[in-house]
This record gives sequence, C-alpha cells and structure tokens, in this order.
Amino acid sequence: MIRVAVNGYGTIGKRVADAVTLQPDMELVGVAKTRPNHEAETAVRKGYPLYAAIEDRVHLFEEAGIELAGTVEELVEAADVVVDACPSGIGAENKAMYEAYDTPALYQGGESADLVDVSFNARGNYDEAEGADHVRVVSCNTTGLSRLLAPVEEAYGVEKARVTLVRRGGDPGQTGRGPINDILPNPVTLPSHHGPDVNTIFPDLDIDTLGMKVPATLMHTHSVNVTLEDAPDAADEVRDLLAEESRLFLIPERHDIDGAGKLKEYAYDIGRPRGDLWENCIWEESVSIEGDDLYLFQAIHQESDVVPENVDAIRAVLGEADRGESMARTDETMGVGLP
Amino acid sequence: MIRVAVNGYGTIGKRVADAVTLQPDMELVGVAKTRPNHEAETAVRKGYPLYAAIEDRVHLFEEAGIELAGTVEELVEAADVVVDACPSGIGAENKAMYEAYDTPALYQGGESADLVDVSFNARGNYDEAEGADHVRVVSCNTTGLSRLLAPVEEAYGVEKARVTLVRRGGDPGQTGRGPINDILPNPVTLPSHHGPDVNTIFPDLDIDTLGMKVPATLMHTHSVNVTLEDAPDAADEVRDLLAEESRLFLIPERHDIDGAGKLKEYAYDIGRPRGDLWENCIWEESVSIEGDDLYLFQAIHQESDVVPENVDAIRAVLGEADRGESMARTDETMGVGLP
Amino acid sequence: MIRVAVNGYGTIGKRVADAVTLQPDMELVGVAKTRPNHEAETAVRKGYPLYAAIEDRVHLFEEAGIELAGTVEELVEAADVVVDACPSGIGAENKAMYEAYDTPALYQGGESADLVDVSFNARGNYDEAEGADHVRVVSCNTTGLSRLLAPVEEAYGVEKARVTLVRRGGDPGQTGRGPINDILPNPVTLPSHHGPDVNTIFPDLDIDTLGMKVPATLMHTHSVNVTLEDAPDAADEVRDLLAEESRLFLIPERHDIDGAGKLKEYAYDIGRPRGDLWENCIWEESVSIEGDDLYLFQAIHQESDVVPENVDAIRAVLGEADRGESMARTDETMGVGLP
Amino acid sequence: MIRVAVNGYGTIGKRVADAVTLQPDMELVGVAKTRPNHEAETAVRKGYPLYAAIEDRVHLFEEAGIELAGTVEELVEAADVVVDACPSGIGAENKAMYEAYDTPALYQGGESADLVDVSFNARGNYDEAEGADHVRVVSCNTTGLSRLLAPVEEAYGVEKARVTLVRRGGDPGQTGRGPINDILPNPVTLPSHHGPDVNTIFPDLDIDTLGMKVPATLMHTHSVNVTLEDAPDAADEVRDLLAEESRLFLIPERHDIDGAGKLKEYAYDIGRPRGDLWENCIWEESVSIEGDDLYLFQAIHQESDVVPENVDAIRAVLGEADRGESMARTDETMGVGLP
Ligand SMILES: NC(=O)c1ccc[n+]([C@@H]2O[C@H](COP(=O)([O-])OP(=O)(O)OC[C@H]3O[C@@H](n4cnc5c(N)ncnc54)[C@H](O)[C@@H]3O)[C@@H](O)[C@H]2O)c1
Ligand SMILES: NC(=O)c1ccc[n+]([C@@H]2O[C@H](COP(=O)([O-])OP(=O)(O)OC[C@H]3O[C@@H](n4cnc5c(N)ncnc54)[C@H](O)[C@@H]3O)[C@@H](O)[C@H]2O)c1
Ligand SMILES: NC(=O)c1ccc[n+]([C@@H]2O[C@H](COP(=O)([O-])OP(=O)(O)OC[C@H]3O[C@@H](n4cnc5c(N)ncnc54)[C@H](O)[C@@H]3O)[C@@H](O)[C@H]2O)c1
Ligand SMILES: NC(=O)c1ccc[n+]([C@@H]2O[C@H](COP(=O)([O-])OP(=O)(O)OC[C@H]3O[C@@H](n4cnc5c(N)ncnc54)[C@H](O)[C@@H]3O)[C@@H](O)[C@H]2O)c1
Repeated sequence: MIRVAVNGYGTIGKRVADAVTLQPDMELVGVAKTRPNHEAETAVRKGYPLYAAIEDRVHLFEEAGIELAGTVEELVEAADVVVDACPSGIGAENKAMYEAYDTPALYQGGESADLVDVSFNARGNYDEAEGADHVRVVSCNTTGLSRLLAPVEEAYGVEKARVTLVRRGGDPGQTGRGPINDILPNPVTLPSHHGPDVNTIFPDLDIDTLGMKVPATLMHTHSVNVTLEDAPDAADEVRDLLAEESRLFLIPERHDIDGAGKLKEYAYDIGRPRGDLWENCIWEESVSIEGDDLYLFQAIHQESDVVPENVDAIRAVLGEADRGESMARTDETMGVGLP
Repeated sequence: MIRVAVNGYGTIGKRVADAVTLQPDMELVGVAKTRPNHEAETAVRKGYPLYAAIEDRVHLFEEAGIELAGTVEELVEAADVVVDACPSGIGAENKAMYEAYDTPALYQGGESADLVDVSFNARGNYDEAEGADHVRVVSCNTTGLSRLLAPVEEAYGVEKARVTLVRRGGDPGQTGRGPINDILPNPVTLPSHHGPDVNTIFPDLDIDTLGMKVPATLMHTHSVNVTLEDAPDAADEVRDLLAEESRLFLIPERHDIDGAGKLKEYAYDIGRPRGDLWENCIWEESVSIEGDDLYLFQAIHQESDVVPENVDAIRAVLGEADRGESMARTDETMGVGLP
Repeated sequence: MIRVAVNGYGTIGKRVADAVTLQPDMELVGVAKTRPNHEAETAVRKGYPLYAAIEDRVHLFEEAGIELAGTVEELVEAADVVVDACPSGIGAENKAMYEAYDTPALYQGGESADLVDVSFNARGNYDEAEGADHVRVVSCNTTGLSRLLAPVEEAYGVEKARVTLVRRGGDPGQTGRGPINDILPNPVTLPSHHGPDVNTIFPDLDIDTLGMKVPATLMHTHSVNVTLEDAPDAADEVRDLLAEESRLFLIPERHDIDGAGKLKEYAYDIGRPRGDLWENCIWEESVSIEGDDLYLFQAIHQESDVVPENVDAIRAVLGEADRGESMARTDETMGVGLP
Repeated sequence: MIRVAVNGYGTIGKRVADAVTLQPDMELVGVAKTRPNHEAETAVRKGYPLYAAIEDRVHLFEEAGIELAGTVEELVEAADVVVDACPSGIGAENKAMYEAYDTPALYQGGESADLVDVSFNARGNYDEAEGADHVRVVSCNTTGLSRLLAPVEEAYGVEKARVTLVRRGGDPGQTGRGPINDILPNPVTLPSHHGPDVNTIFPDLDIDTLGMKVPATLMHTHSVNVTLEDAPDAADEVRDLLAEESRLFLIPERHDIDGAGKLKEYAYDIGRPRGDLWENCIWEESVSIEGDDLYLFQAIHQESDVVPENVDAIRAVLGEADRGESMARTDETMGVGLP
C-alpha cells in the first residue's frame, strides 16, 4: 500500500484525496489544511485524518472543535509520497520540508517547471517520473493539450501546432475574479507560456499558443490547429484515433451539447461526483481535416482533469506500475471514460 | 407501493424520478420523453422504463437504438399518480389525457394556478391536496417563500412581507438565455406575480414582491423584509425558529460562503447529487430585526428545491401519510437537511 | 470666476473636469494625475493644465513627453476649491495638504463621512455646505436615493424606506473585479451601510437598506419601497411629482427600455458624452402605490450621477449661488434632464 | 450631392445616417423605420426626415405624434442610393422594391453573398463595386479580417491564415441573448463560414476560421495566425506596415489597455460619439513573428466598424471617387484614425 499525503486541501487537493481513497494500492494517510473551515469539517466527516498545515493555527482548529491528527510535518514524515496542492508558489516554499523528510513530492501546474526534476503527464511521459524526488503534474490546460497531441504526434507527426486557449476567468466559487463583461487577450504578448509548458512534456514539439480570458467559470475551451506531417484523408480516421484514448471524450453530435453548461449537466446525469469531467471533451463534429491541417474544439474541466494524472504520477514516481497498468487502474477505479 | 409516472424528463423531471426511486413506499413506473437524446440514454442506463411522450416520434427512439416501454398514455394508465414536469404550458395540454385515464396529476410552477384544484407547498398547506385530481407544486421561488413565511407567520404573525427576487437569467445549460451584462427589472410593473402566487398557498398573507433578472445561472437570491405583528427582541430567536425547519439551511458564518458558487461547492463537498441544494439557503448573519422588521437574504436553487415538495405532494394527494410523516420520510431518504 | 482644481483624474475626476469647463462662472485651473497614461495625454489634448500628483513621478511625465504645469501643491494653492476624486481613502490622506493651503475641498463617496464637516446632495441639503472646509459629495447610490426621497418626503412624509440595492460588480474597464456568475449578498449583515449614508443627508429619515453585487457593469439598480405617512390615492400623482425633478428621469413605457443596456443606447442616441446618464432612471410603469406603500425601480449610472452634484457643491461651499440657481445653471450647461 | 436613403434605423442604420450627414458630397434624404419608438423620436429631433417602413403602421406614428415624411417607397424613389440596414434576411425581401425604383442598394453582412453582385470592403476591393446594383458591405468580422489581411498579403504574401473569432454573445442592449456563463464553439463544425466570407473579398486567400461565442457584449476579439510566404525578420516591420493603415489602430503598450472595456473608455475620453471604435484595435505588443508565422490579437467593435465602409461603398457604387479619395474623405470627416 502506498501511503499518500495531500498537503493543501482545496479545489485540486480534495479531489486528489477522494481519488486516492478509491485506489486499491493506496492509502490516504491524511490531508493538511491551513484553516478550520467547512472543508476541514467535511474532511473529518469523510474520515480523512486532518493535519494542521501551519503550526501556529492548531489552536484555531481546537477552538472550532475540529480534531487534528497532527501537524503537516508528521504527515509528510508518515507518507511515501506527498501531493502538494497548495496555491501557486506555496509548493516551492514547501519543497525544503519534503526534502527534510525525504518524501518524494508531486506539485501542481501553478509551480514553476524549474522547481522540479520532471514535469508529468501520464499519456505523454509517464516513464520519466520514475525515481524523481520532485515532479510537477502540469496544469489543466497543458494536461489537456498533452493528452491530445500525444496520439496525434504518434499517428501523423506534428509539423506545428497552434492553439488559442479561451480560458475561464475563475472557478465557480472565486467571486473576486473577473472579467465581468470582457474578452481579454491574456497574456497580450505572444506566443503565450502554454506552448513552452507543453514542451516540458514534449521537448521537440513545435507549438505556438495564444491565451484569452473570458467571463465564464465552468471550463476552458481550446481552439486547436495542428499542421500534420502526414495527414490522413478523412477526419473520421482522426476521430477513431482519438476515440481509442480513455481520457479523450468525443462528444457525439446526437448529445446536442453546445458548451460547458450542457457538458456539466451530462456529467451530473451520469452520476459524476461534483459533475467532474476528467476527460478532454472534444466536439466530434468539430474534428476536421483541411489539407494538412487538423482542427478541433475541446473543453477542459480545469478543476478535475489533472486528478487522474496525479494518481498516475504517484505510481510513476514510486515505480509501482507501468503506464498502461496505472492508467487502466486509475480509469477503472475512478470511472474515467465516457459513453 | 405508490406507482408514480413522470411525464417530462428534463431539469425537474429527472430529479423527481431519482427522488421517487429512493422512497420505500413508491415505485417509478416510468418516465416519458419526447426525444431520444442523451438524457433518454441515461434514463435507460439507470433502468427507468422509458415511454415515448409523442406517438409520432416512436420511430426516432427506435432509430437511435433506444428501447421504449410504451407510449405516455400507457404510462399514465399504469400509474397511481403522474408528475407532469413538461415545459410551461404543456402541462395544461396534458390535463385531458390525465383525466381520460383518471390518474391524479401533479403539475409544476410553470402552469397557471387556474389549471388546478390546489396549489401545493408541503410546509404550507399539505392537507389541502388530499383527494385533489390536479395539484400544482408551486414554483421554485414560491416554494422558497412559503417555507420561510410559514414558521414566521406562526411564530410572530406577518403584518406585511416585501420581497425583492433577484432571479438567475437561465439554468446553466440554457445558453440561449440572457441577459449577458444587465440588471433587468422583470416584470417592470409592480408588484410582481410572485406575491399572488404565494397567496395560492397562504390566501390571507399580505405580501408585495418585485422581480429582477441578472446574468447568473446558479441560484435565485431573495432580499426579504417582513414586518411582524409581534416582533421578537432579538434576531437570535428568529434564527432558532428557522433552524428548526429541515428545509431551511442557515449558512453558518464560519462557512465563509459568500454566494451561490461557494454554496454549490459546499453541496459537492458533502456529496450532494448534481450539487443540488433542496433547502432554502439563508445567510445566518443576515437575519436581523430592526424594530418590527425582519430582514434576511436567502438563495434558492431553482433546479432542485421543488423536488422534495413533489415527493410529498404524491403522498398528500393519495392520502398516504400526514404532513409530518411524509416530510420526515422524504427528508430522510433524500438526505434533506444540512449541517 | 471660481478657480477649480481637480485632484485625481479617473472615472469621476475627468467627468467633473469636463463639467467644470462648461460652467460660465468657473474656470478649470488644472487636473492632477499620478501617472502619464493615455488619460494624461487626453487631458493635455483637451487643453487641461496637467499637474503631477506625486512629486517623485514628475520625471515619468517628462520621459513620456507629456508637459506638466506643475505639482499638485501648486495646483491646490492656485485654486479657490479643489475637487478630490482620488480612490477611496486617498482623499483622507490629501486632507492635510488642502488645509495647508487653506483651500476648501470636496471629496467623493468613497471617503468616510467622519472626514468632513458636511455630506452633500444638492437636492437634499445644499445650504448646509456653505462655508464648510471639507465637504463630501455622497456616493452614486446615496445620491440616487437622496434625490428620490427628498420630494417623496416633502409631499407625503416617509414613515419608513426599505431599499434593495443590486449593485454592478465593477465599472466596464475594471476587469479585475467579479463576480463572473454569482449573486452576492454584499454586505451579508443587515441593514447595509447605505441607509446610514442617506442619514448623513437626511438625519431623521427611517431607512433600511440591503446590498447585493451581481455580474453587470453598466448601472446599479434599486428596488425601492417607501411606506408613506400620507399616501396619495394613485401612482400617477407620484409620477407627476417625480417628473417635476430635473434629475429624475421617468422612463416612458413607449421607450421600450428594459435595462441599463438600452438606457445607455438611449443616452448615445441623444448625444450624451460617454453615454452618461446623470439622472436617476426610474421606470415609469414601475411606480406603484399599494395601500401606504410606494414601490419603484430605478437605475443609477454609477460613473456619472454625482457629476452635477460636484458642480453644485462647488457653488454651495463658496456661497456663490443658492440651490435653485445653481442646480438650474448646472442642468442647463450640462444638459441634465431627459425627454 | 449624392442623395442617400437609409432603410432600417437600428444599430447600423443610425450610425450610417449620422456618418452620411458628415459627408460634404452626400445628403441624407431620410430614414425609414417600422415603429414609432424612441429611436424614431430621436431621428426627428435630429432633423432626419422619417419615413414609415411599413405602410400599415403609418397610423401608429400619427398616434404617437411623430411626423412622417412619407413611406419607404417614396424614400427609395427619391434617393440615388439606399443603404439597407434591416435585420438579417429582411434586406433580401426589400430587394425587389429597390429594383422597382431602380435605386442601387447596399446591404449589410447579415444578408447572403448570393443576394448581391459584389461583396464589399473598401480596403479590399473598392473598385469592384462600381456600377453594381446590389452590393453587400461584409459583416463586422469579415471587415476586420479584410482590412488586416489586405496589407499583409500585399507585403508578405499569405500562405495560409487561421483565425479564431471569439465573438460577443450580443450587443449591449440585446438582453434576450446569451450565453450567460459559457464558452460556445459556434458553429461547432469547422471551418466556420467566416473564412468563405473573407473569400468574397479575396477569392484566392487560403483562410480557415473557427468561431466561438462568449458572455461579453462590447467587442469581438480575434486570435490571428498568418503563415506568410515571405516573412519579415522582425515583428516591428509588421507593426510599421499596419500603422500605415488608417483603419487599423495599434494599441500602444503604454496605454495599458487590457480589453474592450478600457478600449471603449479610451474612445469616450477622446470624444468618440457612442464610444464607437471604427478601427480594428490591434494590440501592438501582440504582433509577433515566429518563423513564418505572424500572430496577433485584434478587437472589433461590431456596432461601428462597418460604418466608414458603408460610406465608401456609396461612392464606389456611384463611381464618385476612387478608393484613396473616398477613404481619405470618410476618415477625415468622421475622424477615423486613432492616436
Ligand atoms: N483550480 C484550477 O483550475 C487548477 C487547475 C489545475 C492546477 N491547479 C493548480 O493546483 C494548485 C492548487 O490550486 P487550487 O485551485 O486547488 O487552489 P485552492 O485555493 O482551491 O486550494 C489550495 C488549498 O491550499 C490551502 N493552503 C494555502 N496555503 C497552504 C499551506 N501553506 N499549506 C497547506 N495548505 C495551504 C488553501 O487553504 C486551500 O485549501 C495550484 O498550483 C494551481 O495552479 C489549479
Ligand atoms: N428549471 C427551473 O428552474 C424550474 C424550477 C421550478 C419549476 N420549474 C417548472 O417545471 C416545469 C419543467 O421545467 P424544466 O426546467 O424541468 O424544463 P426542461 O425544459 O428542463 O424539461 C422539460 C422536459 O419536458 C420534455 N417535454 C417537452 N414537451 C413534452 C411533452 N409534450 N411531453 C412530455 N415531455 C415533454 C422536454 O423534452 C424536457 O425534457 C415547468 O413548469 C417549469 O416552470 C422549473
Ligand atoms: N466609479 C464609481 O462608480 C464611483 C461612483 C461614485 C463615487 N465614486 C468615488 O469617487 C472616488 C474616485 O473613484 P473613481 O471611480 O473615479 O476612481 P478611479 O480609480 O477611476 O480614479 C481615481 C484616479 O485618481 C488617481 N490617483 C490615485 N492616487 C492619487 C493621488 N495620490 N493623487 C492624485 N490622483 C491619484 C488614479 O490614478 C485615478 O486616475 C472614490 O471615492 C469613489 O468611491 C466612484
Ligand atoms: N449589430 C451588429 O453587430 C452588426 C454588425 C455588422 C453588421 N450587422 C448587420 O447589419 C444589419 C442590421 O443589423 P443591426 O444590428 O443594425 O439590427 P437592428 O435590429 O439593431 O436594427 C435593424 C432595424 O431595422 C428595423 N426594421 C425591421 N424590419 C424592417 C423593415 N421591414 N423595414 C425597415 N426597417 C426594418 C428594425 O426596427 C431596426 O430598427 C444585419 O444584416 C446585421 O447582420 C450587424
């Protein structure tokens, strides 16, 4: 049993914790939180041992009547691996602590690629993580691009990829974020950092990206162009290729799904926890071939697509399974893969 | 076992169907749909017998490879009670069919009060529905107001209620609805129809309402004022009163919930299906007494608050349980009531 | 000629500067800015003498090739009155400077009432500002409420006013502000500070207010209830009363204006600079009498309704005209009053 | 003097009418409207002769006390050219009337390219319109693309253009339009119709487009990629090229403009009527060269960019000026071209 700690129990951390408890080969040692809010209460109610992320705040948990299992340092020590899901930049601050206890650590996409030995995407470069002490599961957007480009590169070769990422302004509960009524080139300078981030997974891929921010909260949406080295005659071939991948969902035309709202509704209907969509959601009709160019639209659920990747990264780092085994196990236990 | 049919399997209908299957004293005979879309597929996958709502379209289901159990008329005939959850106005068209088969029918808030014998809210007027052939479960907003005003009227007497309903422009998947960037007085003429709708439950209550529409999809929010006949000294008394009601959730200050986004997040965290919030969500801090005036804010989850009410209405119409029994059973089986 | 300085050339400051240049009895001595951005360039292009608000930044203007007329201290010294339109809280920091040069100062609604001798609304308490050294032109929302309540109080007496203010999340260019998709009770505790702010103009008025924040940028919208001491029989009387006021615009039903978007369109059509709506915009159809209760909806253009008030406050402080004269002159020169 | 009629006095029509009155070589014969609303009142107040677009409704204008100059047929007969700015599809219905009176007609981008002899963009194909009876001024988006691609093609040759158009959901007053909180691939099938529409101006240009719809009202934003035949070494060359064009505005970095909200604010500051931005607004910093690929972001003000094009099209059709003369005259009289 792999003993897993989760440090930072927010949007990503709580999902990773839930996913870990579903794994037959893993045990959730505990989760660390900074504040005794309702998420802390819920963690306790779920039976997750709760640790104080900041020693000075232990008394706050006590005052709130929330029982602690210890401090984050004890948690890190007790674990075989720690998943850091703290806000951007905090992971970097935590690195020394993980090193002090000699616990391998996974970080999230908000941390810099320089912080770690390896950036990780299961479909893209699973094997490279084995034995690494510091691994970064790339961001939601980079995860979405890596999953898509891996099979495309293998089947047809990528001459150049050009992607416009139309990003949600904030997650549904982040009420302090805008814009309210605008479309923001973001960043304004081109190409954006998303392309280089994909290159942490596929160093040789030629990719230019452009980012925007819009007043929506549910999912990011990518407008994807890939000039192929060896393009197939028909888009159907590409559809078949993508349909093979468990973490790519080809939205069938008959589903009549026009955007993220109806995608989430679909996720609710089929019983997904939190309405999570762990898969890239690619509009089947949009997959097109024009000469050498492949085009498609995909929606990326920022809050959840990295969750199965974190689970796989745990096994990859510890060398507990190969890529195929790990991805299959993760998919089966979580229910990844959509009809 | 009460045999329940659901005609109209959309936002409300699918939730009612799910809730019915949880009731020990009910059996879901089937659901009727007009089109063989992904919701139809999901219904079949859940094991809900599927009936064609429109005879001419039977072949469409066949072509889509979706097996039908029969037509809506057969479904209505086989049921002890039918819950009509069709779009506004379609319920009225269906009335003759329900009468033809002598099956008592529940309608939703989109239908006119004139269509039915009794408008219904479990907390408000449960007993009046017994034996009625046509009962209307009042709208999400009227349900929210009735649940709140019932205990307030009983404890302190309502001299006059004045409520501004700030309504979500559309449900999350209704992408054709606006406004995108506006605050619309809606309706512009005052008072709005919501007050008279509350009077279908409490005929003697003096209430004036004002409606607005804003660019949000998650929940409605009510700004409530009630001038009391016999006001308590302190708001805490009112809080205690409201906390007694299982379908009123007093959002604790420590939860740090500022709006509907975080409320939904909370619902996800505690494992609510679809993130549904069946309860009125009242900000505890907002409950205030100024002289004879009570003030508070409440958020209403338009997609789900009427669901437990439909379940209770089924029992009320058939005389199968009294109010206390029915509400308790519904609450327990569904998990209504929030910590 | 009254020599007027404007310190803080943003949303409010630039409008006040424009309005001052239209007054026959005023001269714009100059405007002070902190940064040499495009607003600074525009000020220069319009011929407004530009002063550096922060001495250390003089060189930045020079580097940007923007000519300065001097520093803010020189500007304050040269003026008979200074209008401070700096961000909330900065006005308080500037107070000592204005006192050092013995220049009477007007502040905006973001400053605390405690900072000043008098809070000001032209229609409400013009005379009280005469001779004061520090005067605060109340916020956009309080201005909107004061203008409305003044004639209502005079004609019918206000027993109690209850107002829900549904506020825009941010101005159109404030892209860092949310919420994107939520309705936020804000503040959550009741009543909100807006009522007490109205009491700085009408100390004896009984008013309770509730605030919300929504994803819209164009205007605030108020849902207004006033229980009258001596209510008229018909709403038409109230409409006639309000129609008498130049700064209240009764939106005629035939205009078919459903919200702020169409109101702005109307402002553009009639040639308003920046599409500004200096008047409260009251939906004529919404004005209703129910027993002793008056109800109506009004939209408030947050960026501009305080501008004529600032112009009047200048005259009021210096005792240069009485209320009637000043308001008439301001209205005529600016074009306040809508058909 | 060219006698110009405008049929359809809405978003586009009223702007064209205003622009026509500014032309020394044109006279506005009148505008035709269907309903006596506030826009009709404003037209009359501006001194624009008003004609009834629908004969049966003449009495409505009379009842509203709005004086009519005649019917639309009389208007069309009296004009040398008619600008049809009716809603999509109505222009096609009007075609027979224009032919009956032998009056050349301009249509807007909502009409089909098949309806007309020539689709028009001043910079792109001015000369082709001479003598045509039916000319379509292409849509706001196609206008924006044509203006940009014309100089790029001339200077460097376009191997292939790929553009993602992130479109505003509706104009500010169109409150019935969504989405409220979503990012919609629209159309879902690729490439979108915008590319072929550009080909009505540049038949040989290789261009693929993808469209999306988002909850914003102010402007469209394009993410532009052009693979050049003969790419320059540095982006500065491209910037210089684009800066030459009066209808392309390169937003300087120092302006600190992050989106459409601040662009409109800038338009207000410099005194633009309605805050109109007739120019493509290109972020100067975004203009980049990566190998053979040019990238940039541009914002397009859907309500106004086609207005100078309509003015030019009038002269082009009647052969009254050559491209250079007409564009220069239009730009000067309207004030097109931004500092
Ligand atoms: N939300 C997304 O869309 C998303 C998607 C992919 C990756 N990420 C990345 O995941 C990481 C976490 O983001 P998130 O959205 O889950 O953030 P979040 O704010 O939802 O959660 C972070 C949690 O960490 C806690 N925390 C703060 N300081 C801490 C500390 N010192 N020790 C322990 N816990 C601490 C916070 O209380 C919070 O519960 C970031 O790197 C982010 O960039 C986020
Ligand atoms: N969505 C809400 O916010 C909400 C809240 C409370 C009450 N209601 C009321 O509930 C009712 C249903 O609303 P909804 O939001 O669930 O609508 P919906 O559009 O989500 O679902 C209606 C369903 O009925 C189906 N349908 C249409 N015509 C039919 C027919 N002739 N026979 C059978 N099925 C048919 C549709 O295909 C759809 O699946 C309305 O009266 C509405 O006013 C809605
Ligand atoms: N925008 C509104 O909706 C609104 C409505 C009514 C009242 N107000 C009040 O008006 C005041 C100004 O608000 P605003 O919206 O115009 O803000 P703003 O941010 O648009 O403008 C403030 C300007 O002051 C400048 N500034 C900052 N520090 C300065 C300093 N030390 N000296 C001189 N100038 C400085 C800024 O550069 C900016 O140009 C605030 O008190 C606000 O609460 C704003
Ligand atoms: N609004 C934009 O963003 C935009 C941009 C570029 C092009 N266009 C195109 O311009 C055209 C007009 O669009 P719009 O946005 O100005 O529409 P609009 O709805 O704002 O205005 C159309 C006007 O035509 C009037 N009208 C309707 N039927 C009429 C008839 N039979 N005769 C005369 N007038 C009639 C309407 O009352 C309205 O005043 C459409 O083809 C549209 O696709 C619009």
